[in-house]
Amino acid sequence: MRIVVALGGNALGKTPEQQLQLVKGTAKPIVDLIEKGNEVIIAHGNGPQVGMINLAMATSAQSEANTPEMPFPECGAMSQGYIGYHLQNAIREELLNRGSNRSVATVITQVMVDKNDPAFENPTKPIGSFYTEEEAKKLADEKGYIVKEDAGRGWRRVVPSPIPIDVAEKETVKTLVENGHIVITVGGGGIPVVVEGNSLVGVPAVIDKDFASEKIAEILDADYLIVLTAVEKVAINFGKQNQEELSRITLADAARYIEEGHFAPGSMLPKVKAAMKFAASKEGRKALITALEKAGEGIEGLTGTLVVN
Amino acid sequence: MRIVVALGGNALGKTPEQQLQLVKGTAKPIVDLIEKGNEVIIAHGNGPQVGMINLAMATSAQSEANTPEMPFPECGAMSQGYIGYHLQNAIREELLNRGSNRSVATVITQVMVDKNDPAFENPTKPIGSFYTEEEAKKLADEKGYIVKEDAGRGWRRVVPSPIPIDVAEKETVKTLVENGHIVITVGGGGIPVVVEGNSLVGVPAVIDKDFASEKIAEILDADYLIVLTAVEKVAINFGKQNQEELSRITLADAARYIEEGHFAPGSMLPKVKAAMKFAASKEGRKALITALEKAGEGIEGLTGTLVVN
Repeated sequence: MRIVVALGGNALGKTPEQQLQLVKGTAKPIVDLIEKGNEVIIAHGNGPQVGMINLAMATSAQSEANTPEMPFPECGAMSQGYIGYHLQNAIREELLNRGSNRSVATVITQVMVDKNDPAFENPTKPIGSFYTEEEAKKLADEKGYIVKEDAGRGWRRVVPSPIPIDVAEKETVKTLVENGHIVITVGGGGIPVVVEGNSLVGVPAVIDKDFASEKIAEILDADYLIVLTAVEKVAINFGKQNQEELSRITLADAARYIEEGHFAPGSMLPKVKAAMKFAASKEGRKALITALEKAGEGIEGLTGTLVVN
Repeated sequence: MRIVVALGGNALGKTPEQQLQLVKGTAKPIVDLIEKGNEVIIAHGNGPQVGMINLAMATSAQSEANTPEMPFPECGAMSQGYIGYHLQNAIREELLNRGSNRSVATVITQVMVDKNDPAFENPTKPIGSFYTEEEAKKLADEKGYIVKEDAGRGWRRVVPSPIPIDVAEKETVKTLVENGHIVITVGGGGIPVVVEGNSLVGVPAVIDKDFASEKIAEILDADYLIVLTAVEKVAINFGKQNQEELSRITLADAARYIEEGHFAPGSMLPKVKAAMKFAASKEGRKALITALEKAGEGIEGLTGTLVVN
């Protein structure tokens, strides 16, 4: 089976040392899937990592070091290199430990968004540092940033979260997958770009990594999309006495649960929506939402929440 | 013909805005080569870019922002993402402008070095900021950095410049090239790693990008290695009245000129050595040293300095 696995950026830690350790654990369940003969494509988030890079670049640009201001899409490109380097190494090592010399590589990946996406009218995704209202409004004046008050914790820059419409490097990824390579792609949801004639132009935005993973899974005609999360199964009435874990839901079930407000925005909601989109995209496609270490059992139908058409 | 082109990092500018402009010019001669039916693989330097990233990360780590210290290999991985993103876009656009939808992509690439390479005994490559002697010695104590006085300009950290022995992602690059994709690889000479059992371990080092380009050219069984530089032809007695530009030199000529001290270390010398190594590696292989905009004419034998066995 061809499987796209969407890893969370939070699972990768906050420092290079943490990341180097955490990817070792991440690699095992991924290599389990590969060892069973599946073609595995790895997508991942980059929230903490791109936040750190963006903050470091902005801090240094304001300091005596006087390094250049770094636009957000370029910070995303850096995060793909930074995360990909550790992740490809960990997977390579785990494969070698099990006697396989399959090759693993990271492709720097741009994801196209529509410049008329309504998300650009209403940026919602906070990035970078917290500011006072005064600092924030100064940044808005000087750099054209959109700034918003963030839940009583201070002011932050916000960027839009548009829907992915295509993947610029899809043919590269396809060729590698078809030739038996393990590919890490659409890191952080991909570097967000809009098409202008023959150009791709980077835009400050954050593409949800679950939606980007869903998009590349469709493009690659994958059989399975595995959206990884902190819990083994999706639940309704989460955290309440009548909490109920779900093993298998149809699109109609999922739509009803969303309608009833069971899934938190920015958390389980985008995962369920991405899973629904993939299950709806073609007959036979299945999406599984589960914890990293349960992915193998999940694919065998033993756990996780399966979303089917 | 299969051609590896080694671009200089200095040609890519010091800021993201400069880089975005400069890559447009870089793309044209590269696409000229592609348009003539050649298979082109692009390698590039990253001196100014990894220096900037390393400085920004170190500055921010010491500031209130308190971002994590970033090891040098990770900075290199970031620079591959940052440069590759701009370069792959510029080449993609130039191809589309000429009616070709060939795909272009950057592979995050690690280059293996030997942990017993004598370079590790004598680090020579300065990286990052200038320090006072006192600051430098403190860094040496606290972080184990090797520091050296740099030509009267202050103290700097130095890292070794070992010889590349293999490319971790070679199979990935090979598959892409054989399937007609344009690949950007071994950026900045590659992320330097040593092999420890089944692991690849990043080391603070700078692999000369000309030697890394030569290595991947050998691995890919390329016909040509084009080492780009600021001048159209290599010269002996450079800058003197009896300066003489060279059109075609044999390995014996090149060895004699090196012996006579015609080529500056850290500048033309590594380019000539990389060219010699490639020309010597297999019958029929040729290396060309020339300026970016002369690459097309050079391949036709009209200009540049050809190094042959």
